[in-house]
Amino acid sequence: MNYPSGIKKKCMILKSHANRGMGLEFELNETNKFYLNENIANVHKKPTPITISRVDFKSRVDAVIKEAYFKTPSTTDYNGVYKGKYIDFEAKETSNLSYFPLANIHKHQIEHIKSVISHGGIGFIIVRFTKLDETYYLDGSNLVEFVESKIRKSIPLSYFREKGFILKTNINPYIDYLKVIDSIYFKGGNV
Amino acid sequence: MNYPSGIKKKCMILKSHANRGMGLEFELNETNKFYLNENIANVHKKPTPITISRVDFKSRVDAVIKEAYFKTPSTTDYNGVYKGKYIDFEAKETSNLSYFPLANIHKHQIEHIKSVISHGGIGFIIVRFTKLDETYYLDGSNLVEFVESKIRKSIPLSYFREKGFILKTNINPYIDYLKVIDSIYFKGGNV
Repeated sequence: MNYPSGIKKKCMILKSHANRGMGLEFELNETNKFYLNENIANVHKKPTPITISRVDFKSRVDAVIKEAYFKTPSTTDYNGVYKGKYIDFEAKETSNLSYFPLANIHKHQIEHIKSVISHGGIGFIIVRFTKLDETYYLDGSNLVEFVESKIRKSIPLSYFREKGFILKTNINPYIDYLKVIDSIYFKGGNV
Repeated sequence: MNYPSGIKKKCMILKSHANRGMGLEFELNETNKFYLNENIANVHKKPTPITISRVDFKSRVDAVIKEAYFKTPSTTDYNGVYKGKYIDFEAKETSNLSYFPLANIHKHQIEHIKSVISHGGIGFIIVRFTKLDETYYLDGSNLVEFVESKIRKSIPLSYFREKGFILKTNINPYIDYLKVIDSIYFKGGNV
């Protein structure tokens, strides 16, 4: 890509800034540990879905998987319980500066979020624009609305800025996404 | 073991009867598919937790896991959303005739079910006594109560019969565990 002069350098600086973080997945795992330890919520990342083809049993206790394949996930990566409600989300990073390509989320996963909402659960995505060091909460309802409009194959940053909520990175917890959920779903206390 | 004459034969017949089924995991997966397709609930089995040590990248698309290890699960196997509520459970089979050894469930998993309940979720276990061909729903509250009484390291069948609910095997769905949840948690319609 050809950038106007000056832009490229700016990007590099921003990238180096973003790299000070430990990555979105790490920060979310730490956030969930914090929520669990502080008895705020019980949310976990699901294991990577794989198909195991060959296992060597060294002994009764030790087994080594010698051949396995990654499977396309049919659900999202994170789910759990908060104030009795089911919460479910996918987290993604993008190095793009102005849009989030929908190809980063499997079609199954969007269908899953839609289904979660239809069953009264809370579904959403967390997207980090690494080069901008900006992380957004986008509610599942807005995600589905965008996808079903079929206008674009990527969600522009402006859509996140308009419809989403910025998640500032802190310490304990790193990414306090439940604060956003409180503001949307638990305005008057518990639902 | 020495059985009184006649008992051994009876057990064998019962076992052969139980084997007509396809196994608890298969039946629960089919049940969850049914719930999903009929738009009743969205419940999935989590992938097996593993630690991946070595991956061979044949190409950009194909990756083969060449070395991985099974991890002790920190949560239960199944979770999802039903009528807005978070549901979470573990399913186990035992070949014992009169008790379910607590060693079959990791301590972490019992702690997890306790935590789920404390956050307003619905936690439970499904236990099948394969040789009796009897499957029970035992609510998490009863499981925790039993474990915390510390009387025994196994739950006697009588406890399941007294506190639990029998789950008859049918077709579509195989194991209608949500009917039990309705009777406990949604007595007067939605909570």
